[in-house]
Amino acid sequence: MTPLSDAIHQGRLEGDLLNPNCPSREIMKHVTSRWGVLALIALQGGTLRFSALRRRIGGVSDRMLTQTLQTLEQDGFVRRTAYPVVPPHVEYSLTEEGAEAAELVRALADWIEARTPAILARRARAAEDA
Amino acid sequence: MTPLSDAIHQGRLEGDLLNPNCPSREIMKHVTSRWGVLALIALQGGTLRFSALRRRIGGVSDRMLTQTLQTLEQDGFVRRTAYPVVPPHVEYSLTEEGAEAAELVRALADWIEARTPAILARRARAAEDA
Repeated sequence: MTPLSDAIHQGRLEGDLLNPNCPSREIMKHVTSRWGVLALIALQGGTLRFSALRRRIGGVSDRMLTQTLQTLEQDGFVRRTAYPVVPPHVEYSLTEEGAEAAELVRALADWIEARTPAILARRARAAEDA
Repeated sequence: MTPLSDAIHQGRLEGDLLNPNCPSREIMKHVTSRWGVLALIALQGGTLRFSALRRRIGGVSDRMLTQTLQTLEQDGFVRRTAYPVVPPHVEYSLTEEGAEAAELVRALADWIEARTPAILARRARAAEDA
C-alpha cells in the first residue's frame, strides 16, 4: 500500500479523484466502465441469474460480464449467491452500497438518454456545416 | 446512420443504454471515460487554459487530454475558445449541457471519494480472510 492508500484506508483522508495516486480512481473506473455502468443499471430491477443479466445488458460477452461482476463484487457493490444444486444456480444482486452507486449512475444514464437526440442532431448539423 | 440512430435523431425515441445499437452508449463512454470524468470535474471550477487543465487533472498526457477535449467538444459539453494572439491562447470551459453532465458526474465522484476508505478497508479484510 502507498502512504496515500494507507492514510485513506485508515480513514484519515477521503479519496481525491484529481490526485493521480488516489485509489478512488480505480473504483471510479470500475463503476463507470462500459459494462460496470450497465450491470449496475440492469441489477437495479432486482436479483438476476448470470444468463438473464447477460441478456438484459445486451452485447456483453460471458468473459467481460464475469470480469465486471467480479470487480464489482470485490468493491462490495454486487453480491454473488451460489446455490449448491445441479446444474449450478448463481444469482447476482446489488448490495446496499451497490444500490447507492447504481442510483447515481442511473441519474447520469437518464440524463444522457434524454439528451441523446439533441446531441445527434447537433452533430449532424456540424457535419453539414463542415 | 442506423434506423435506430435515425429515429433517435428525429426525436421519435430517447436513447436506451441497454440497447447495444443505441448511440447513447458512445456518449456515456465519452462522459465516463477516465479523462472525460476528470476533465468535466476540473472544468467545474471555471474556464482553464490547456496547460492549467492538464495540471489540475494530474497524470494525463497531452495527447489523451487533447483527444478527450475534442470528443467532449463534439458532444457539445466543452467549449474551446482560441484567441488569435502569439503565442496561441486557447481556453476551455463547460457549455450549459456540459455543466449539467459535470454535476451528475460530480455527484458520483463525491460518493466514491467518500466511500473509498470503507472500500479499501473491506478489501484489506477480505485479503486477510483469504
